[in-house]
Amino acid sequence: MLKNLLADLPTSLSEELMEDLVCADGVRIERIVSTGQCSAPDDWYDQDENEWVLLLAGAARLEIEWEGGQRRMVDLQSGDHCYLPAHRRHRVEWTNSEEVTVWLAVWWMPAGR
Amino acid sequence: MLKNLLADLPTSLSEELMEDLVCADGVRIERIVSTGQCSAPDDWYDQDENEWVLLLAGAARLEIEWEGGQRRMVDLQSGDHCYLPAHRRHRVEWTNSEEVTVWLAVWWMPAGR
Repeated sequence: MLKNLLADLPTSLSEELMEDLVCADGVRIERIVSTGQCSAPDDWYDQDENEWVLLLAGAARLEIEWEGGQRRMVDLQSGDHCYLPAHRRHRVEWTNSEEVTVWLAVWWMPAGR
Repeated sequence: MLKNLLADLPTSLSEELMEDLVCADGVRIERIVSTGQCSAPDDWYDQDENEWVLLLAGAARLEIEWEGGQRRMVDLQSGDHCYLPAHRRHRVEWTNSEEVTVWLAVWWMPAGR
């Protein structure tokens, strides 16, 4: 079990590293480590679960599609967070390849599902 | 809405500062800022909700009562996290009064409640 989310960080990865921290009663909390990985240009996440992300280290850029279809880039620095309700389409436009980016992600289902 | 969890930190508080970041579909995510606050010696939290905490800055010590009644102190530094299932009795033994301590806390109900 990972004791410290900023410890034992890999410096280079072939793909994102995802580790469960807690998975209980419908909530999953994960650490995600990126070292430059991002989504393909037309690859959008469209999830059944709500997601809340917090950037713990590094830097990233999300592209988010808002109600009405408007798309906007959101830059995240350490300490920045973002709530993505279920089916709020989004993709990872960029993560820094020069440093390790550490995300905290919380997932849970919308009520009534 | 708080954009960055490490920004706009108060330096001294008469009591802990708690701010909701997300509250949706049975999950509540909060930032808690402490500047030396702690629990009274015999003051234990005994919550109906599951709680997961992550220390984002500063330093703290929790006292946790494990199954069987055994009590243990757990020191938390920045990046350390701790899962407290519902009714896992605990108290905040200490937070650093020399620097600001920032907690992330996630609360949710056990299944079937």
